[in-house]
Amino acid sequence: MTTPLRLGIAGLGTVGVGVVKIVRQKANLLATRTGRPVVITAVSARSRDKDRGVNLSDYAWEDDPVALAKRDDVDVFVELMGGENGPAKDSIEAAIASGKDVVTANKALLAHHGQALAEAAEEAGRVIRFEAAVAGGIPVIKALTEGLAGNDITRVMGVMNGTCNYILTRMLDDGLSYDEVFAEADKLGYLEADPNLDVGGIDAGHKLSLLSSIAFGTQVDFDAVELEGIQRISIEDIKQANDLGYRIKLLGVAQMTGRGLEQRMSPCLVPKNSPLGQLKGGTNMVVIEGDAVEQIVLRGPGAGEGPTASAVMGDVCDIARGFRVSTFGIPAKSLSKAKTAQSNSPAPYYLHLKLEDRPGALAKIATVLGDNGISIDRMRQTKHKNAAAPVLIVTHKTQRAALDAAIEAMQDTGVVESAPVALRIEMV
Amino acid sequence: MTTPLRLGIAGLGTVGVGVVKIVRQKANLLATRTGRPVVITAVSARSRDKDRGVNLSDYAWEDDPVALAKRDDVDVFVELMGGENGPAKDSIEAAIASGKDVVTANKALLAHHGQALAEAAEEAGRVIRFEAAVAGGIPVIKALTEGLAGNDITRVMGVMNGTCNYILTRMLDDGLSYDEVFAEADKLGYLEADPNLDVGGIDAGHKLSLLSSIAFGTQVDFDAVELEGIQRISIEDIKQANDLGYRIKLLGVAQMTGRGLEQRMSPCLVPKNSPLGQLKGGTNMVVIEGDAVEQIVLRGPGAGEGPTASAVMGDVCDIARGFRVSTFGIPAKSLSKAKTAQSNSPAPYYLHLKLEDRPGALAKIATVLGDNGISIDRMRQTKHKNAAAPVLIVTHKTQRAALDAAIEAMQDTGVVESAPVALRIEMV
Repeated sequence: MTTPLRLGIAGLGTVGVGVVKIVRQKANLLATRTGRPVVITAVSARSRDKDRGVNLSDYAWEDDPVALAKRDDVDVFVELMGGENGPAKDSIEAAIASGKDVVTANKALLAHHGQALAEAAEEAGRVIRFEAAVAGGIPVIKALTEGLAGNDITRVMGVMNGTCNYILTRMLDDGLSYDEVFAEADKLGYLEADPNLDVGGIDAGHKLSLLSSIAFGTQVDFDAVELEGIQRISIEDIKQANDLGYRIKLLGVAQMTGRGLEQRMSPCLVPKNSPLGQLKGGTNMVVIEGDAVEQIVLRGPGAGEGPTASAVMGDVCDIARGFRVSTFGIPAKSLSKAKTAQSNSPAPYYLHLKLEDRPGALAKIATVLGDNGISIDRMRQTKHKNAAAPVLIVTHKTQRAALDAAIEAMQDTGVVESAPVALRIEMV
Repeated sequence: MTTPLRLGIAGLGTVGVGVVKIVRQKANLLATRTGRPVVITAVSARSRDKDRGVNLSDYAWEDDPVALAKRDDVDVFVELMGGENGPAKDSIEAAIASGKDVVTANKALLAHHGQALAEAAEEAGRVIRFEAAVAGGIPVIKALTEGLAGNDITRVMGVMNGTCNYILTRMLDDGLSYDEVFAEADKLGYLEADPNLDVGGIDAGHKLSLLSSIAFGTQVDFDAVELEGIQRISIEDIKQANDLGYRIKLLGVAQMTGRGLEQRMSPCLVPKNSPLGQLKGGTNMVVIEGDAVEQIVLRGPGAGEGPTASAVMGDVCDIARGFRVSTFGIPAKSLSKAKTAQSNSPAPYYLHLKLEDRPGALAKIATVLGDNGISIDRMRQTKHKNAAAPVLIVTHKTQRAALDAAIEAMQDTGVVESAPVALRIEMV
């Protein structure tokens, strides 16, 4: 195959420019590796005149990404605009309809429309690749879909939002409050335009829903992801968890249970000496467990020009080499509709209560837990200056439903001052 | 493609049996993922009668793996016998000559004959895949060859011999001597028949030479790997390194420099809070650095039935899907002969000397270092009961050649009691 592979790139932000740079600077390397030249024929972005520090004069320009997607001189439509709907969706649909393969970094789009797009691509005999949509530069989609294809995957976990991990790391390392670090992250431009996408766990939830689909052969179902953000995590909880031997991470977990597929993205405690516990700053980590391979841990930069462009180019090179794999690893029509299971697989929990400082208060709480079948692994009451006494409890393994019932019953005891913090301890 | 992919498996030890189990137990999963049935048609091993706990009666039996490799009903020859020459080499050559693809876990064979085999496969239009040969269940060959294909790789590092890492971990955790843990590992069956393959760094060196080839597009050159085993590592060095904030690992490093390709497999110090420093027991880790992706870390089990069979099946599934990639990532004829560079890229070093306990001894050593242009970052003399005073020095960055010159000059001072221990501190 010496026919060039011709790319049309829509979106010339950080990642798009990164892709252009690699294609321009590594022409020989790419041709040697894939067996054919990889070239850009046309590009599209919102503003034509902006100086992006890269020479675009060799490429045709389209104001409209849909027009770009339909061009006869484009084999692969590279969508790097983002957005759950709008131009990204329209242009990918147009690309598929006009017989192009698609490479995208768009997690929101695939989390919401992945099944429909995968079916459309399949009918047209085209592929959609999205390595860059999950965990930045880490080739995790490839590992799951191809490298571990001989496994029944049992669990996938990941810290996949660098901003959240940055916030939580900085709170611990520098003793700052959530609000202080949030304001700082905002100033540094680390946050999405709608910060809830980051700190509310939505962005990471999108990624988890894509990993789930590939891992378990199920249709992407973002709405089934139980989402909990990091907004309620206090510096006190971070410190207490640390003293108990844990770190708090915004952790995504997907696992297939007898009751169905559990998908949750929530702040969890993980052992501080585990690879997940050791993860700092904006770095991402994905843990994959399979019946044959046991456990694989993949770590790398979750964002940025180079890493994300690296992932895009991995997909482009696969297409250049003639590798054709279904969007979610198996044919779209074979993806099952997973039954959604409420996250109820047993785990130890961390509880943080503020109790009225009077005789019998602790006994009441212990009784409520016992009544709900929850046994206590560790309990500590910490020093306090206020009337309310902070009490920390690490439970033995229990189900979330039992814990929720206990927390509700605690409210009736009259000794609990505010809503308890309850965080799952994920065993990794 | 609904034609079955037919495997012939040579070697029915732990890994071979693991592969048979996966093919038998996951027929539907494999067919769904790859689009065609994956079946075994014939097997070969030394003893036909041995009970391997798996039903082989459906498969043709060959006493001779070469005969297996030539069978008309085999599409992929899966070589799991091992050995640098002999039946493994003969049968792989026969397989290629008779038009089969090859999947192997045989690092020794490829480290020595990889280039010739890759050229033969290429001429015959066949592929050789060897994910299982490096770092067990970790899909690292795939990550390097495909996922990171858009990168110029700058450095590859790895802890890839589980036995050595087990020995070093247990020495640190339990304060045991090298000899004690070695004897224990031997009793537990963790060591190769020739233990020097493990503790001498040869097995890990084989793996590094394969990674180097893929990372840098060069012909496999195992003889150019500078090998140093862990036999001289004392519990004292492990403890001192730990006190200084480092762990000792048998670490492979390959990097392209202006002077040529450096490949070394040797005990190094790594920061104890780095992913490499945190690695315990038999787990493997590979760190890949590329100009776009920055740094990716892959961690997983380095051996065992399930993990190794998982890697073999990843390769098998790729072939079933029709993915054809050159043995070392680019056409064998395009692999360059790298100029070998002696490991001389600058790094800090850890030095452990035994000095005569008399005035001026330390000054003499400091002078020798200074004369060779080596400056001292940290120095400490530890408590001692004997006449010889243990002195620990961490240097600033220096070149190995300067250090060797200094060590030689130290012998002439008359104050050094035995050959100093000098270990590179690899910055990760």
